[in-house]
Amino acid sequence: MEKKILLTIAYDGTSFFGWQVQKDPDVRTVQGEVQKALTKLFKTEIEVTGASRTDRGVHAMGQRATIVVDTTMPVENMPSAMNSVLPKDIAVQKAEEVPFEFHPRFDAKNKTYIYTIYPSRIRNPLYRNISEPVKWKLDIKKMQEAAKAFIGTHDFKGFCFSGNSSKTTVRTIFSLEVYEEGEFIKIAVNGDGFLYNMVRIIAGTLIQVGAGKIAPEDMEDIIASGDRSRAGHTAGPSGLMLKNIEYN
Amino acid sequence: MEKKILLTIAYDGTSFFGWQVQKDPDVRTVQGEVQKALTKLFKTEIEVTGASRTDRGVHAMGQRATIVVDTTMPVENMPSAMNSVLPKDIAVQKAEEVPFEFHPRFDAKNKTYIYTIYPSRIRNPLYRNISEPVKWKLDIKKMQEAAKAFIGTHDFKGFCFSGNSSKTTVRTIFSLEVYEEGEFIKIAVNGDGFLYNMVRIIAGTLIQVGAGKIAPEDMEDIIASGDRSRAGHTAGPSGLMLKNIEYN
Repeated sequence: MEKKILLTIAYDGTSFFGWQVQKDPDVRTVQGEVQKALTKLFKTEIEVTGASRTDRGVHAMGQRATIVVDTTMPVENMPSAMNSVLPKDIAVQKAEEVPFEFHPRFDAKNKTYIYTIYPSRIRNPLYRNISEPVKWKLDIKKMQEAAKAFIGTHDFKGFCFSGNSSKTTVRTIFSLEVYEEGEFIKIAVNGDGFLYNMVRIIAGTLIQVGAGKIAPEDMEDIIASGDRSRAGHTAGPSGLMLKNIEYN
Repeated sequence: MEKKILLTIAYDGTSFFGWQVQKDPDVRTVQGEVQKALTKLFKTEIEVTGASRTDRGVHAMGQRATIVVDTTMPVENMPSAMNSVLPKDIAVQKAEEVPFEFHPRFDAKNKTYIYTIYPSRIRNPLYRNISEPVKWKLDIKKMQEAAKAFIGTHDFKGFCFSGNSSKTTVRTIFSLEVYEEGEFIKIAVNGDGFLYNMVRIIAGTLIQVGAGKIAPEDMEDIIASGDRSRAGHTAGPSGLMLKNIEYN
């Protein structure tokens, strides 16, 4: 009998050209690899519908995707069955049955991204794929101060890729925290949705604030201006990780 | 003028056949790559003398090695100069001048290794290269209890590779701690030196203790027996990291 299954997927984005399948079949994508593995496992073509189109080099602990399968396999056995055919840099963390009307993107209530900064004059090879190296000294208090201005509902026109095609650039950020964890500075942001490159531009802007190049008290004004050139740079993809997606 | 320089080197061991140069020049080793980079930088062949021969797949934050160079380059500029010619998975963290009689291996007072365990039924691709996945439930209290038996001076004959060629198998362990850090269980061991595979066999044994397969109260007896077959398995290399080496 057909079932709709919601998968929680983790991946090391380093060797992928992002989540979404590309026209060129030689371009390695997470969605493409998951589809290949499921087709092998279930002996029929399976379409995978993802919640979030992560970019090239971006990681996930909690990407979500749905599949429809006709199988007698108990849902609790699916993660290990799928992981046995998936490549090493992708693994299903969880599988659960959902109603057919469930949609992993449209039914998402909020998403959490973590951005990891490694502030050091010298690069560390063990951190190279999971953090953004920053040579500047960063003042974390200033970053925390500036972070407050993002919270709430704003037009984030100045915090997205200029070629953005979303209908509206208004988004709500529920929380934005900057904290130290071991040798890293982390930025955890939770919101109802994010524009293309939005988290990486927020991270780049907060890095500039930490480095003293943007004043925390100017942040409200910079957001309100909707001017991409007043925000900071787009921080690199390897520091970004899709942590979690919540549903109703 | 010739100087002797002590380097602190970090590397992601995943893509190396260990530290030590092999006869086959196609076998990628850390020592080989460092020598190649220094030869490029200083335009003359440079020999690199390492403190510790880490195995294939083993990482380091604090490997030490000496070189003798004839250069006017200030020692504080050496790390970034070297890192500009080193591959991405190796980076010099520190350089300091030492007397010519200094030897990175013979003058080491103690070494610290960290072994990282990821206890989970499901593999996580983001942790695959930096931890040992363990599917068993681990009782950390039992592991901490068993760890005490290793502290002090013992004949660790049962805790080394059977083909071991060291003159003596007596070593002193100054501290051995088992603790949780985030989603990981870590084992930090500090001693005056370690036999071939010794840390990985200690880790494998403590994993067996945590899983209830070896009783903590038997540990003293197992060590005293000198019997390799009574100790646990050799835990995998990706969980192991050479953290630090101290000198007088």
